[in-house]
Amino acid sequence: VQFSCRTVAIAGVGLIGASIGLALRASHPEIRRIGVGRSKQTLLRAQRLGAIDAIAEPEQAAQEADLFVIAAPLGAYPSILRAIAPVLREHPRLAITDAGSTKRQPLAQASEILGDRAKRFVGAHPIAGAERSGPDAARADLFQQRACILTPQDCDPDALFFVEAFWRALGARISVMDAESHDRLFARISHLPHLAAYALVNAIVRLAGREEPFAFAGAGFRDFTRIASSSPEMWRDIALANADVLVQALDALRAEIDALREAVARKDAEALFSAFAAAKQARDEWLARHRCEEESCLKS
Amino acid sequence: VQFSCRTVAIAGVGLIGASIGLALRASHPEIRRIGVGRSKQTLLRAQRLGAIDAIAEPEQAAQEADLFVIAAPLGAYPSILRAIAPVLREHPRLAITDAGSTKRQPLAQASEILGDRAKRFVGAHPIAGAERSGPDAARADLFQQRACILTPQDCDPDALFFVEAFWRALGARISVMDAESHDRLFARISHLPHLAAYALVNAIVRLAGREEPFAFAGAGFRDFTRIASSSPEMWRDIALANADVLVQALDALRAEIDALREAVARKDAEALFSAFAAAKQARDEWLARHRCEEESCLKS
Repeated sequence: VQFSCRTVAIAGVGLIGASIGLALRASHPEIRRIGVGRSKQTLLRAQRLGAIDAIAEPEQAAQEADLFVIAAPLGAYPSILRAIAPVLREHPRLAITDAGSTKRQPLAQASEILGDRAKRFVGAHPIAGAERSGPDAARADLFQQRACILTPQDCDPDALFFVEAFWRALGARISVMDAESHDRLFARISHLPHLAAYALVNAIVRLAGREEPFAFAGAGFRDFTRIASSSPEMWRDIALANADVLVQALDALRAEIDALREAVARKDAEALFSAFAAAKQARDEWLARHRCEEESCLKS
Repeated sequence: VQFSCRTVAIAGVGLIGASIGLALRASHPEIRRIGVGRSKQTLLRAQRLGAIDAIAEPEQAAQEADLFVIAAPLGAYPSILRAIAPVLREHPRLAITDAGSTKRQPLAQASEILGDRAKRFVGAHPIAGAERSGPDAARADLFQQRACILTPQDCDPDALFFVEAFWRALGARISVMDAESHDRLFARISHLPHLAAYALVNAIVRLAGREEPFAFAGAGFRDFTRIASSSPEMWRDIALANADVLVQALDALRAEIDALREAVARKDAEALFSAFAAAKQARDEWLARHRCEEESCLKS
């Protein structure tokens, strides 16, 4: 599939947005990249790093672009969508995609703010997060061989075709699912682990009282808590956008912790062994299925 | 400090015990190493790997040894201590150390089973765990530059001196603390994270129902759950041995998860942001203090 396009607008030039810019430059140097964002400093930094060619207000960027990519935190979507909504009336072939970690809320906001032009919006979630953030963490190969999930809903076929070609041009492997399934899946495998890591670090600090909380903490602790170094703003927005299913996921985690807590309190050796063995088996089977050797598949 | 000794008995030749054997061979090839264990097959494997020179029953090994190292799961301590107790009466200079992940229970069992000979026991905890187990995972350098915590209590000065020299001979850096402080610290930085990882994996499996539980799970998930691949037997024994403080730690984690759950449910953006930012700051400060670069200090 060929991706052909003159100008791409990128709203948000942090890790994801700036990596999009660098990946586009590498594979399609003829495409002009316009950066949009709240922070002039971040935009200038992204431009200096070669991630964007120019900086503009969202309206102007949308007017000039064939594709408008929202790579901003979820909380910034309404203002961005409101800024480009009038442009979409004059410029009906503009396509829009995003890189948000939840997909129901962007769809609902596009529908509410863009009205019948929401059919130009094709939601996407490139699975390429990292706990680092900002344009300095960006890499041209961030999306290479990584999954990108599209959640098209009532969109124009040509917009879907164009957006799919765009993500493929960045090196991503496309999957398609509905927004509800996406949000349930990621509440489970991504949002819940992040909140658990944040809760764990805060519990350890609280338990430490006035002692050094992490004395003698080693590689296991570092790996377990790596995701607790992720952007608080990004994760606040994700938690809010996916609140309903995330509450269910947190309830499930709480039930497992309660069960372990009771088994420890009554010194129930069998219950502890079977809970630990079940978890080990599930994880080991996942690793084996993915033929992902612990040391060799470290990419992040 | 020189370590001088003719024979060391190693009870348990899994990751830790076999690594002790390999490290001893590397630094003190003149020392004879006798392996003790429940599984003949594991003992033969450890011998084939060069981790031990000979295999014996615990009584015989204790009779021949200058130092008896317990590197078995905590649940095996009573039977090992009972086997060597009579030998200690005839062979009063024998010193005993261990490699257990909790320290109050080994001390209490030594006191109960060995009586006044418990002063020959010097508890130790080499911080060199990994989620792998068994003699095939053993490495001669497992203890090099890693901390080893000693928790001496009413022990003979010569036994303490001898055991400290032993762990130094393996390359470890010695710290000393009391058993209560040790168990509280490791409940917080090690036992709680392990139980949280087990609970998380089980919660994800439960949430998935009949779906593939870990679809699209990536590097973050792999790191976060690595410790859920640890030995269920070992962790059952640790949870039982440290039950009282581990229950307190689990209660603290539950309180943090409850607070996040309520903040998500009422869509409290400020509460979520401040909880996430506090965790990120605590972890980032820990990383900075340890000058431990994410990529460069990967040892496990």
